[in-house]
Amino acid sequence: MSSELSVTVWNEYRHERDSDEVAEVYPEGIHAVIAEGLEERGFDTRTATLDDPEHGLTEGVLADTDVLTWWGHRAHDEVSDHIVERVVERVREGMGLLVLHSAHYSKPFKSLMGTSCSLKWREADERERLWVVEPGHPIAAGVDEHIEIPRAEMYGERFDVPAPDDLVFTSWFEGGEVFRSGCCYTRGSGKIFYFRPGHETYPIYYRDDVCDVLANAVEWAAPAGGPEPFFGNADPLEELDD
Amino acid sequence: MSSELSVTVWNEYRHERDSDEVAEVYPEGIHAVIAEGLEERGFDTRTATLDDPEHGLTEGVLADTDVLTWWGHRAHDEVSDHIVERVVERVREGMGLLVLHSAHYSKPFKSLMGTSCSLKWREADERERLWVVEPGHPIAAGVDEHIEIPRAEMYGERFDVPAPDDLVFTSWFEGGEVFRSGCCYTRGSGKIFYFRPGHETYPIYYRDDVCDVLANAVEWAAPAGGPEPFFGNADPLEELDD
Amino acid sequence: MSSELSVTVWNEYRHERDSDEVAEVYPEGIHAVIAEGLEERGFDTRTATLDDPEHGLTEGVLADTDVLTWWGHRAHDEVSDHIVERVVERVREGMGLLVLHSAHYSKPFKSLMGTSCSLKWREADERERLWVVEPGHPIAAGVDEHIEIPRAEMYGERFDVPAPDDLVFTSWFEGGEVFRSGCCYTRGSGKIFYFRPGHETYPIYYRDDVCDVLANAVEWAAPAGGPEPFFGNADPLEELDD
Amino acid sequence: MSSELSVTVWNEYRHERDSDEVAEVYPEGIHAVIAEGLEERGFDTRTATLDDPEHGLTEGVLADTDVLTWWGHRAHDEVSDHIVERVVERVREGMGLLVLHSAHYSKPFKSLMGTSCSLKWREADERERLWVVEPGHPIAAGVDEHIEIPRAEMYGERFDVPAPDDLVFTSWFEGGEVFRSGCCYTRGSGKIFYFRPGHETYPIYYRDDVCDVLANAVEWAAPAGGPEPFFGNADPLEELDD
Repeated sequence: MSSELSVTVWNEYRHERDSDEVAEVYPEGIHAVIAEGLEERGFDTRTATLDDPEHGLTEGVLADTDVLTWWGHRAHDEVSDHIVERVVERVREGMGLLVLHSAHYSKPFKSLMGTSCSLKWREADERERLWVVEPGHPIAAGVDEHIEIPRAEMYGERFDVPAPDDLVFTSWFEGGEVFRSGCCYTRGSGKIFYFRPGHETYPIYYRDDVCDVLANAVEWAAPAGGPEPFFGNADPLEELDD
Repeated sequence: MSSELSVTVWNEYRHERDSDEVAEVYPEGIHAVIAEGLEERGFDTRTATLDDPEHGLTEGVLADTDVLTWWGHRAHDEVSDHIVERVVERVREGMGLLVLHSAHYSKPFKSLMGTSCSLKWREADERERLWVVEPGHPIAAGVDEHIEIPRAEMYGERFDVPAPDDLVFTSWFEGGEVFRSGCCYTRGSGKIFYFRPGHETYPIYYRDDVCDVLANAVEWAAPAGGPEPFFGNADPLEELDD
Repeated sequence: MSSELSVTVWNEYRHERDSDEVAEVYPEGIHAVIAEGLEERGFDTRTATLDDPEHGLTEGVLADTDVLTWWGHRAHDEVSDHIVERVVERVREGMGLLVLHSAHYSKPFKSLMGTSCSLKWREADERERLWVVEPGHPIAAGVDEHIEIPRAEMYGERFDVPAPDDLVFTSWFEGGEVFRSGCCYTRGSGKIFYFRPGHETYPIYYRDDVCDVLANAVEWAAPAGGPEPFFGNADPLEELDD
Repeated sequence: MSSELSVTVWNEYRHERDSDEVAEVYPEGIHAVIAEGLEERGFDTRTATLDDPEHGLTEGVLADTDVLTWWGHRAHDEVSDHIVERVVERVREGMGLLVLHSAHYSKPFKSLMGTSCSLKWREADERERLWVVEPGHPIAAGVDEHIEIPRAEMYGERFDVPAPDDLVFTSWFEGGEVFRSGCCYTRGSGKIFYFRPGHETYPIYYRDDVCDVLANAVEWAAPAGGPEPFFGNADPLEELDD
């Protein structure tokens, strides 16, 4: 199935062009590395970035996208509300959405969650360990009981999101915090997976285990092919009493 | 406890002033009847309507409101985005919100759900029977196994909302549809209850069983007094490795 | 993927041998019809029945089963506790389980749910309409917005099960009841789907739409390949303070 | 309300009589300390232990119990299946159940969960920090953002329980693990709260913050007074077609 799924990898793509430190880690941009990881795992991928026309998310691109991945950090506000609405609509119609790391504050995610999506954070080069709490979930396929990331930005609870439909990963941090770091949602007919790891200054998206999780999440989030609901004024299906 | 809870009953209050048919059912407005039912059940109630200054929802009123009930139908768009944001913020801080009938399409509910909140509907004077599917839930306290409403507007699935945290009621309709008619959510620190019955042309809010459900929902949705989360840059609680 | 999944279709297989009325509908047994429907949809299927040695559910059979479907009605008590424990253990390890109609009262389902699994029922040749309430769920793939079954046994709420992790279908009945008729659970690493339709006197398992749902459920419930958790005494992963 | 709730505090009560180390911490038994903490917070409490006749859980005692708390560790197997069934039945009818620490392996909890309830563990005098992940939940009332326990037994994920209906607390451990340490369930009409802290060698049940959580949980788990469902053969509520 995976060979036919079409993935669009979206990236803000600013840090990589402005910061030598980030460019050293992701010289072609975070999107290039994520796309390569997914391409290797059998998906048809394309990329799109903030500074492309329409942010690279034209009607045509979205219509041809099964799953969209989203990475953004410092320019969330520059994403046009018009395009955000277009993305959100496609999710409700069934397109999958993978929300990565600092995209917890992106407009599409906040709009789909209905909450502030705030959290605690700290940049201190500390250890993170993601524990699989739901080993029967397809997003945990082929993953070890925990993923250890030697240097990470910390995100800590309270993470202000709705309780996830499925909680797949929970993170431990060296500095004393925990975080629900793999969260599944359904909104409309679309599936959403928030996955925490992936700061711009760490080579996290080069890791095989992280790419495996992303690939699992793409398969899980792909449109399922259920009925398109009719909304509006409906005739009765049974005879009514007078 | 209930004697100390402060409830603000909000109503669009247009149908009752424009339509003789509606005015006959709710001469002082839907809000007056809901407020009276809650007042009788021991809550401190006030009312507020669309055409009040700031829709009656000033900072002061909301700060002094434990639970807000919302009824609207044809003028959702006239509710100022500024006031909607104020309401949504208060919910996230802990204020309870009861979303009634056609307020499924209200701005605060859509914003907090992140979905279209669409559904099927029909005005055909048909019978509705709300079944309690979660009899252990506090919102079902004192309620019979089902509530029968002889004449109702129909709402049918697919109801495009996130799967509720708790599903308390499911409705049967004479014309052949079903509907998740009592849905609980938590968003931020606030609790939200959507309750389906209550069209403007039927005297549904005069019913004791319906008012009992609303009163139960007020108690359930009242602020729980948990910790106010800190969001932002956080110092480590443990010593970090060098 | 489906071509490699191995399905064992279990049936009590008593009604069909004792009752002419049932034998007329299912001359080779309910299991034969279900197995054929799944075989046609690309699964490797075998059948097993109560009166086989070890009820046909030897260690070897279960070890080689990805998904087990279960139909029973009047002889639940004759299923050996030893075999029930074997089935339950395999589910916890990751084997999928489809629980069909009157198997709501089967030992494996009651043991995995921890509740009475009781409900209301009536045999009155009445109409059932299953509404898809979660159109984005993979079990709803290719299904219409509702499935109409002209003559069915009624099952009504309160259905005494834990709130499902995902609620895919809700049924409307002509006689005035509703029922959560497509319920998803995870227990251990195993996925469980309860699906309501399928009384022994109605040819429901010959329907394409019903078989499509069963096939979708087999794919959804198949083992996902996640980590096998370690349980027991664990060494620390971090250095502890003295 | 709390002044009228009747709580039965059950304890295995073996460690305290056999081990000097434990007796030094809990000279009158763990149950005495829990009962005192709840009594001080306004509940009517009684205690019951394994070696009492019928384990102290007669029909009369259970009929008069709103919420039962359960602590056991090394003698789970000595609890009579007959009494377990009695407890489980009462929970399904609406009695609340608080499952404490090592009672994750108790017969009533395993029976109500339907899973193995296994986990990782370690006795190494390490630090635990329970984070509130759902600050709007009534069980978090008056609690700080985290509870720090200086010396605790470690319990680590995977915790083999069904995904909780509400997850209130998640624990961080010094040795590198996480744990869902405050888990809410509804089974039948009864509410169940699993709370992790409380090893027999640590004075954890003397802590005000821990007792506050237990008191909150008692109020949350108390019978809600909803309808007692009818199960069985039901007459139609609507006229059926011929």
